Amino acid sequence: MRKIVECIPNFSEGRRTDVIDQIVAGIKSVPDAILLDRESDPNHNRSVITFVASPESAVDAALAGARKAAELIDLNRHTGEHPRMGATDVIPFVPISGVTMEECVALARECGQRLWTELGIPVYLYEKAAVRPERENLAAIRKGQFEGIREGIATSEDRRPDFGDARVHPTAGITAVGARPPLIAYNINLGTSDIEVANKIARAVRHQNGGLRYVKALGFELKDRGIVQVSMNMVNCEGTPLFRVFEMVKREAERYGVSVIGSEIVGLVPQMALNAVADFYLQLEGFSAAQILEHRLQSAMEAER
Amino acid sequence: MRKIVECIPNFSEGRRTDVIDQIVAGIKSVPDAILLDRESDPNHNRSVITFVASPESAVDAALAGARKAAELIDLNRHTGEHPRMGATDVIPFVPISGVTMEECVALARECGQRLWTELGIPVYLYEKAAVRPERENLAAIRKGQFEGIREGIATSEDRRPDFGDARVHPTAGITAVGARPPLIAYNINLGTSDIEVANKIARAVRHQNGGLRYVKALGFELKDRGIVQVSMNMVNCEGTPLFRVFEMVKREAERYGVSVIGSEIVGLVPQMALNAVADFYLQLEGFSAAQILEHRLQSAMEAER
Repeated sequence: MRKIVECIPNFSEGRRTDVIDQIVAGIKSVPDAILLDRESDPNHNRSVITFVASPESAVDAALAGARKAAELIDLNRHTGEHPRMGATDVIPFVPISGVTMEECVALARECGQRLWTELGIPVYLYEKAAVRPERENLAAIRKGQFEGIREGIATSEDRRPDFGDARVHPTAGITAVGARPPLIAYNINLGTSDIEVANKIARAVRHQNGGLRYVKALGFELKDRGIVQVSMNMVNCEGTPLFRVFEMVKREAERYGVSVIGSEIVGLVPQMALNAVADFYLQLEGFSAAQILEHRLQSAMEAER
Repeated sequence: MRKIVECIPNFSEGRRTDVIDQIVAGIKSVPDAILLDRESDPNHNRSVITFVASPESAVDAALAGARKAAELIDLNRHTGEHPRMGATDVIPFVPISGVTMEECVALARECGQRLWTELGIPVYLYEKAAVRPERENLAAIRKGQFEGIREGIATSEDRRPDFGDARVHPTAGITAVGARPPLIAYNINLGTSDIEVANKIARAVRHQNGGLRYVKALGFELKDRGIVQVSMNMVNCEGTPLFRVFEMVKREAERYGVSVIGSEIVGLVPQMALNAVADFYLQLEGFSAAQILEHRLQSAMEAER
């Protein structure tokens, strides 16, 4: 099967289109890196670039973007709502097909090493690529942002980078590089306007309060539709699949006499997450992705190459 | 989106491997035709070859196979259990992605025309490509097989070919060329050994007896497992999707106090048939295939070409 890694670097620039264009051009200049999406938020002053590449090219493409960002972004002049610590703020590598999480961890570490040696930017490793358990959680690493890290990095042992000297790059700051499963933004809509019902269900299903391990959830009002929703991030859809959280939300809603009126996937979803839903509800026996015509075609085309 | 046509020609040879190999080689000699599957049955003395191609190449590849079959197969010497009328017996064109049924009908008619002008083999058009309504059903066309058609074709108006003179090719017979949706072989297993339950459910869900339009179904015993199954051909999985027949079988089984213990997809299934299952059970709102990462990647790659 074709090997595909997804990479979603976040850059601390969401206003100057020419800067973002040059960063994107840097990524696209690497043969075999394919841009899937780019989104810039002027309030957050941040851009999220999604590309896929072979494992051989993924690090080159991430570095090409980071090189441009280091040239063009000065964190000393950066303002915006989103907490940030680097011109290239975070670089997660995500296994999509034919690639293991371990390979993505190796890519993250290679990328971290090269950010330091080639660009002089120190690096924290996070999530699955973390070498210190307390760095698995990105929010903990990011605390204090650029300015706070610049202050504390030389003296505080728990601020010491995983790659590079104990100082931030003067303009490009410091970058968090990690590996993680694909993330799915998934919302379930309820037939009520009572936000308390959504809040209670969110608490029931999310990991934080005793629910499913890979679910983050919040209650949310859709005022224009007069309904509420359980808004979720599914951070590991193999560990906690969509159908399991759907069934749990439906059952919890019943307890309040409320129906699930629909659900929505926001943004991209890996095909295997949907295939797992079909497999569950049809109670399939011995089904393999090799039976999917498009999958067979892909394999046959690669065999011919 | 990339344009893909599937074609599943059936050839009246299932014993002489060298002959089948030469037919397959003929198909594969057309650039951009990709072999997905080949199955030969010595009892039926028949081979089913599955390939995909662009619309531009699908007819060339089918003709390349038919040309070899006409050279190497003499129906006067052919015996086997399966009713047959041509060296190349049937050629269905199936829309898979980026292609409409109308385009496949046009391919079938082009293929039929060229079978006559280039190989001297007359043609019946069937299913969606039929120009006479009574020829939509392949079983009706095939009645009497090679020998019966050879007898009646000159004199009987309802045997007259859609392309070519009213006579069979002396050794290669006559070929049925058509267009149809993808077919899914789908079985639902029941927690009982009582074949009557499977038979009754099969009658309830199949089109023939008043059930769902695009379902053919039979009760079937799985003796080694001590259970029975409803064995189905889903002949149009957009018209009658998998989830609908699954839910109907489950409900009918309940009426006998029987559970559905599993289901199985035999052979290939188009990705969109599984996506429709996920969409139904998750009650998705506004979902589009463009949100599937692999789909987005495919589109991005084609845009770059």
